[in-house]
Amino acid sequence: MKLIGRQTWQFENQPRIIGRAAVVGPEEGEGPLSADFDYVYDNLEIGEKTWEKGERKLLEQATQLALVNANITKEELQFFIGGDLLNQIISSSFSARKLGAPYLGVFGACSTSMESLALASLIVDSGAGNYVLAGTVSHNCTVEKQFRYPTEYGSQKPPYAQYTVTGSGCSVVSRTGDGPVVTRATIGRVMDLGIKDPFNMGAAMAPAAADTIVSHFRDTGLEPGYYDLIVTGDLASVGLPITKELLQKEGIPMEQTTFNDCGLMIYDREKQPYVVAGGSGCGCSATVTYGHILNRMQKGDLKRVLIVATGALLSPISYQQGESIPCIAHAVAIEKEG
Amino acid sequence: MKLIGRQTWQFENQPRIIGRAAVVGPEEGEGPLSADFDYVYDNLEIGEKTWEKGERKLLEQATQLALVNANITKEELQFFIGGDLLNQIISSSFSARKLGAPYLGVFGACSTSMESLALASLIVDSGAGNYVLAGTVSHNCTVEKQFRYPTEYGSQKPPYAQYTVTGSGCSVVSRTGDGPVVTRATIGRVMDLGIKDPFNMGAAMAPAAADTIVSHFRDTGLEPGYYDLIVTGDLASVGLPITKELLQKEGIPMEQTTFNDCGLMIYDREKQPYVVAGGSGCGCSATVTYGHILNRMQKGDLKRVLIVATGALLSPISYQQGESIPCIAHAVAIEKEG
Repeated sequence: MKLIGRQTWQFENQPRIIGRAAVVGPEEGEGPLSADFDYVYDNLEIGEKTWEKGERKLLEQATQLALVNANITKEELQFFIGGDLLNQIISSSFSARKLGAPYLGVFGACSTSMESLALASLIVDSGAGNYVLAGTVSHNCTVEKQFRYPTEYGSQKPPYAQYTVTGSGCSVVSRTGDGPVVTRATIGRVMDLGIKDPFNMGAAMAPAAADTIVSHFRDTGLEPGYYDLIVTGDLASVGLPITKELLQKEGIPMEQTTFNDCGLMIYDREKQPYVVAGGSGCGCSATVTYGHILNRMQKGDLKRVLIVATGALLSPISYQQGESIPCIAHAVAIEKEG
Repeated sequence: MKLIGRQTWQFENQPRIIGRAAVVGPEEGEGPLSADFDYVYDNLEIGEKTWEKGERKLLEQATQLALVNANITKEELQFFIGGDLLNQIISSSFSARKLGAPYLGVFGACSTSMESLALASLIVDSGAGNYVLAGTVSHNCTVEKQFRYPTEYGSQKPPYAQYTVTGSGCSVVSRTGDGPVVTRATIGRVMDLGIKDPFNMGAAMAPAAADTIVSHFRDTGLEPGYYDLIVTGDLASVGLPITKELLQKEGIPMEQTTFNDCGLMIYDREKQPYVVAGGSGCGCSATVTYGHILNRMQKGDLKRVLIVATGALLSPISYQQGESIPCIAHAVAIEKEG
């Protein structure tokens, strides 16, 4: 375990993702990555009476599938690091109750997917634990209701609005077992360029994504071409071009690699126009990473990837009190051996 | 860095608390620990226009005082680990924006004080960073408004209700510099014995406190008498006796040590009857620890303490949907050398 540069952890004991799972709702099942998910629900209710109970069920199921795929029991699991978008991260805390493992709750809005993976890797790498589960979840209807308007109101959305992914992604990190290696993590700083419109999250988060990517390459001395794929969490069609422009200004040669965004990958915006600018929510980068990207890595299609999960750290109250939107991005590098 | 037993981290490189600060509101200033706080506000508004802005100011001020007391600059600070009780932990995220350091948001309700200190110590001990700030805050009026009723409604409280502390406590953890050493941390499991009344948090959290204390002594092989003082976070007058009874049933010899609760220490319940059963909120254990307890340690009055911060992981929505209250407790041991 080593801090390199200002804000990047270099893992030296090869923490590996030995098991993972991605469970999604019906709309993600209609998207282009459908075949990559472990389970697709055919109903947005996830068979439950409330959206919140449905969201929790997604996470509970993903944690259990990740344990099965890692070939370990609930009793062998040493720590669970989880977070979600709901007030007081109740989906994670209630899932932790079911798991029974020592639990660390985290919150980084949609960056929670990589915040939890970075911390799980730190615990495993430093010898503070083995078999550590990192996971997160979001649900379209719980989030719309909490941050904007209940879906049932049918309120109009501006063309830059994003669509919260209904899905949960989890991984089990361990020193023992097989799987891709978590090699580095760059912990982000809060960036806020003054955007106040809670629908315009892509633009708000773009500077945070750019700052973390710039920091990652400054700290590591690597070039973007080192990675086969760099993906941001959920910048979607508005935020990704802004980040590209910011990186160009910083002189980061992103044309050396494939640069994409999980929010653009998970839906087909032509066939699914209701997603507007693309996907968002902490389930977005989590399901795309633990489903699609690690599947491609397993097939030998990708060798080194950098996941830059972005988060908008607003609350309805901060917005109502006239505050702008502080944003953050955490980056984690995952590499296949050999 | 070593995991001992099931859930306890043993720090081996002497992460130290080299600076700390506790900033409180007027009611805490009227309590018996008044002289231990770095700054006492004479108004509950903390000079701001909204309760939420007031809460944030408490944390911003405590982070800055902790840096001053640690004798480091904002630029030298490597990571900030913060969390609070507000939806989407906005007090912490906005303070992180001001600090500018790489930021990890955490949530463990009132256990956030020790969750953040445990993680800061892990980062420092493992070499993932030096100069790591851990901090949390709560404000009586933001919390009453969010979890129960706005204070202005003047609603009656049952005799087991607790009073949220208005205050922020922060610490800077480092391998270099002087100060007491963080020696161990026991990460708690979620416990839920079915209590559904959100006023009855002491009773709800008592089993989590007992479980973490039992785990700490099982994992470490120590006896309670090893510590001069063991304090729980905010069990207050209802929860502490329940925890004592549970520990007695488990055969843990707590009579070997002084066993108290931060929620009972911070107010004078006779002179301040409005606090009902005692203090709560993540500012409770944070200000009592970083103010009072570490002052006593500095004076040579205490040599080894165990802080068991307790948290009730409910949200208004989980309660309204008929769920019980999942609870957790994280314990951190702090020792003076020599």
